[in-house]
Amino acid sequence: MIAIDLNFADIQWQYHILTTFFVGVILPLLYYLYQRYFTSTPNKYNKLEAAIKLDYAIPDEAKPHWKGRRLHPPHVTVRTAEDRASIQSYCPATTQYLGTFACTTREQMDLQIEKAAFAQKSWKESSFAVRKQLLRTLAQFILDNQQDIARVACRDSGKTKLDASMGEIMVTLEKLNWTIAHGERALRPSTRSGPSSLLMGLMKNAEVRYEPLGVVSAIVSWNYPLHNLLGPIILALFSGNAIVVKCSEQVVWSSAWFVGMVHAALRRLEICEDLVQLVYCFPEDADYFTAHPGLQHITFIGSKPVAHKVLQSASKELTPCVIELGGKDSVIVMDDVSDLKALSSILMRGTFQSAGQNCIGIERVICVANVYDSLVEILNERVGKLRLGSDIDQLDEIDMGAMISDNRFDEIERLVQDAVAKGARLLHGGKRYLHPNYPQGHYFEPTLLVDVNSTMDIANQEVFGPVLTVMKAGDVDEAVKISNSCEYGLGNSVFGANFQRCNDVANQLESGNVAINDFATFYVCQLPFGGCKKSGFGKFGGEEGLTGLCNSKSVVMDKPLLRAFGVKTAIPPPIDYPIADDKRAWGFVSSLNTASYDNRIWKVMKSFKKLAKGGA
Amino acid sequence: MIAIDLNFADIQWQYHILTTFFVGVILPLLYYLYQRYFTSTPNKYNKLEAAIKLDYAIPDEAKPHWKGRRLHPPHVTVRTAEDRASIQSYCPATTQYLGTFACTTREQMDLQIEKAAFAQKSWKESSFAVRKQLLRTLAQFILDNQQDIARVACRDSGKTKLDASMGEIMVTLEKLNWTIAHGERALRPSTRSGPSSLLMGLMKNAEVRYEPLGVVSAIVSWNYPLHNLLGPIILALFSGNAIVVKCSEQVVWSSAWFVGMVHAALRRLEICEDLVQLVYCFPEDADYFTAHPGLQHITFIGSKPVAHKVLQSASKELTPCVIELGGKDSVIVMDDVSDLKALSSILMRGTFQSAGQNCIGIERVICVANVYDSLVEILNERVGKLRLGSDIDQLDEIDMGAMISDNRFDEIERLVQDAVAKGARLLHGGKRYLHPNYPQGHYFEPTLLVDVNSTMDIANQEVFGPVLTVMKAGDVDEAVKISNSCEYGLGNSVFGANFQRCNDVANQLESGNVAINDFATFYVCQLPFGGCKKSGFGKFGGEEGLTGLCNSKSVVMDKPLLRAFGVKTAIPPPIDYPIADDKRAWGFVSSLNTASYDNRIWKVMKSFKKLAKGGA
Repeated sequence: MIAIDLNFADIQWQYHILTTFFVGVILPLLYYLYQRYFTSTPNKYNKLEAAIKLDYAIPDEAKPHWKGRRLHPPHVTVRTAEDRASIQSYCPATTQYLGTFACTTREQMDLQIEKAAFAQKSWKESSFAVRKQLLRTLAQFILDNQQDIARVACRDSGKTKLDASMGEIMVTLEKLNWTIAHGERALRPSTRSGPSSLLMGLMKNAEVRYEPLGVVSAIVSWNYPLHNLLGPIILALFSGNAIVVKCSEQVVWSSAWFVGMVHAALRRLEICEDLVQLVYCFPEDADYFTAHPGLQHITFIGSKPVAHKVLQSASKELTPCVIELGGKDSVIVMDDVSDLKALSSILMRGTFQSAGQNCIGIERVICVANVYDSLVEILNERVGKLRLGSDIDQLDEIDMGAMISDNRFDEIERLVQDAVAKGARLLHGGKRYLHPNYPQGHYFEPTLLVDVNSTMDIANQEVFGPVLTVMKAGDVDEAVKISNSCEYGLGNSVFGANFQRCNDVANQLESGNVAINDFATFYVCQLPFGGCKKSGFGKFGGEEGLTGLCNSKSVVMDKPLLRAFGVKTAIPPPIDYPIADDKRAWGFVSSLNTASYDNRIWKVMKSFKKLAKGGA
Repeated sequence: MIAIDLNFADIQWQYHILTTFFVGVILPLLYYLYQRYFTSTPNKYNKLEAAIKLDYAIPDEAKPHWKGRRLHPPHVTVRTAEDRASIQSYCPATTQYLGTFACTTREQMDLQIEKAAFAQKSWKESSFAVRKQLLRTLAQFILDNQQDIARVACRDSGKTKLDASMGEIMVTLEKLNWTIAHGERALRPSTRSGPSSLLMGLMKNAEVRYEPLGVVSAIVSWNYPLHNLLGPIILALFSGNAIVVKCSEQVVWSSAWFVGMVHAALRRLEICEDLVQLVYCFPEDADYFTAHPGLQHITFIGSKPVAHKVLQSASKELTPCVIELGGKDSVIVMDDVSDLKALSSILMRGTFQSAGQNCIGIERVICVANVYDSLVEILNERVGKLRLGSDIDQLDEIDMGAMISDNRFDEIERLVQDAVAKGARLLHGGKRYLHPNYPQGHYFEPTLLVDVNSTMDIANQEVFGPVLTVMKAGDVDEAVKISNSCEYGLGNSVFGANFQRCNDVANQLESGNVAINDFATFYVCQLPFGGCKKSGFGKFGGEEGLTGLCNSKSVVMDKPLLRAFGVKTAIPPPIDYPIADDKRAWGFVSSLNTASYDNRIWKVMKSFKKLAKGGA
């Protein structure tokens, strides 16, 4: 008997292992695979949302080994600084000329906004299936043409292809795919709890519906010519809006090509191209655009001085704005970080990616004292190895590209010198770089500046360049204090072995975004993105990014059961005009208030009695 | 056998009725009673959140039959229009003098904001139990003192007690109770879907956390001295902020008393009173306040010209604003409304409540042709019966009170005359009214103006007075067109017998809020409230009202399972600086992109293979 019992227990035990494995591993895996390959992707039974192959030619300028004449010296104005009618595009890394573009005139802006508004009238009625198909088509084109697209972005911005593959292509693909997967749900009407009143709560349903605003606009910065441009277009189109994008005068050539790519997709799907419009002009002419009555929303990505102008201009037409400005993003390195070498790799990528021209690039490494020296030593060894140049023509092995222009070199050099004068140690770089192959290119040396403290300008001003700045903090509390001491509040990271401690720090940081044990993933994740303090306000990206381009309409209606019985809201006789008896009217409503909101049951009962008597 | 069978079936049938009744009626009722009286209210086991009785004295001026000297003529400036150092409060219905208040100076504002910021440092750490107890204490005080509170509001604004009982007390109680019931959930961290990337999605969790902004402000209008003031205070305190409220110069006396009531509650609960500050000054001095760097958020409720100034001023410090301006709210009356008499009661309350000084008051009744004449006939008969006066001393039986001042009487009369000149029929009123008992009081005759069309100024400009304006539409489509033709977009109603038709209209209306078969319930419901077009932007109230006063912090972290195994994000070797091989680095990231985002399984497999080989 005992043997049999044991045997039986054995079988049970094996059986348990099997079921646990099946339920815990096999089932989730099958479910995952099913979700991924049979529901979220269009299969043969559902071609409605499937991507369509695009034909869209790559420009010659983006081909490897393209020979373009070099400009001496390069600048975006055509001939003189006074000539503001056209914009000249060139490659900041090689100074090769890319084309001349006539600035959008006021009359053209009017016409473009009018066309966009007209196209939106039918687009707002489009199904999510069509919108998903559009995004899938774009995503597929980008995936299939990663090389070419990266080269277009590199040619106009001077960045490396690796920087483009992550900062342009990966984040754009994530935005497209996230929106395809979650966008429809985010835009569904949101059911709300309705009134808390005992009586009204029984009668009314409440919900918020998201309806496209019409023509929205985005004024985008030059640092990610593909991603910054496409991000707002994706959100605007998916939420049923038309969009007019104002690109930076630094990247007109590539912006025109990328908007052309969207137009090609729209054409291929037989959607009106007018939905997406591109404008460009010099900053001093932008007021006409931001004060335009035809725009229902403005997303501005840029700098603080310009933001003030945009807000003042937009206030004329009461146009709501999302303002995304700079940051002074810090990384807090806790005392228990286990692998400083691995961390240094993240710090270097976060700092030198796109030559530091990244609004959520690492601007300050705030390191707790006991690991400070080791970290500085590792960084010192690594930063010296970084090579500058252009890899678009695959001639060089390089780590960092050019900057968009040389107009901030004086200021960055001044910031470094100010820090050194106040006691910082400059371990690498610190000045502009004359590249032997591209003497007119806009290169700045990869810079490592340590022993930085809060008295230095560089600890408070955004550098937006390839400067790795390391600050020492006595302990974690001081690190948080340093991090919060500057006027910006965009993104932060915190690294440490203990999650709870990292999480505590995350809660104390004054910023719109925090990554724990990682860099900038909050942006990739399609969480709502935006800063606080002087980094701006409002959010783009993710759910809030979609609903933010909508009129959130609050709708109240009778509950279906009441409707079925034909019960309708009516004004109770004691409070109907003309009021028959002031005292009764008062008695009625005050009893209604008590019945609805008092927590004392005897008071509620008494009020119901009074209500039944019409307030008397 | 057959008899037994039938019997058995009978038993089954009775049994079914009983279970259905029990499950469908008794159980929900028990559950409801349990929820209401044993969980959502503090019971004897949980006194933590229970209301505490307040002692807060009612001012003499609010007592019935109070004898105050009358001003001839009444005005808010003390002596001359040039003297802007103090504000004089008086009752607009009786012109009785209520007191003189020194305007808040710039130095006082600085100090108040500083004090509020200091108090907020500990308040932000307070538990929701304490915050709920505070709101419950206020709610209980308001419920227990409805008469007195209504009289304070009436004395300063000239409205009737019935108007106060609904527009001031009921909506404030609803806001308090809704926030107690649902506020904590609205402020909980919101878990998000995280990245859609196949690989990153397996690693990262994403959420949005709502953290109080610090010191927020509200600039509120005079039309609901209790509710407009208390609304922002409730939301600010519950979300962990301090608040500085700027009340209108028209209602300083009552605002000071209502803020005193909040202070009494804070004192009683041993919370620092500095959390809630009141400022008042004339509009031309308000710029200093709206440009104050100590304010992290501004909610502005007022008029368009002032809104432009607020936005321009707030742009200096990049302070985010919610702008709630006027409206030209329409009611669309469909052709199948069954009971025009009942509807007319709603129309009259929606129009004449608070003498039409209601931002979501009915400004236009747009009636489909076939019911137009009958509706006009009913309204014509009823509007003539409305009586004007003051009921605060219970001397008169009245329907409508005074307006806040007489400074817009010329304009309202002009609007009526312009309409009449263009063909409208004036059936009642249309001009200011000299009340025999209160000859200096600010009374305007209840006005009925029919046959109004879009060419008339009154069809497009906000009246904000007791004018019932009726417009005729050929059909429902035309009614929608008329409704959308004005520049405002705050609230609308649609009345009809067929819900689906009403709902279609609701979806077509260009406004922030719609009530179907009811008036203004969207406001009471604690849905997010705010307009579109020239009615402003942003939302207050409800979930968005609470989270809108918070820094929405996007946080990304490794999944707990990965953390448990010590897995950390690291930079893969092929893309680690210095880049060993450009081609491999490109190959690695482009394969990663394909593996993460491509839908074609063979491409994904190929990419994984390339990734395993480090991108080669």
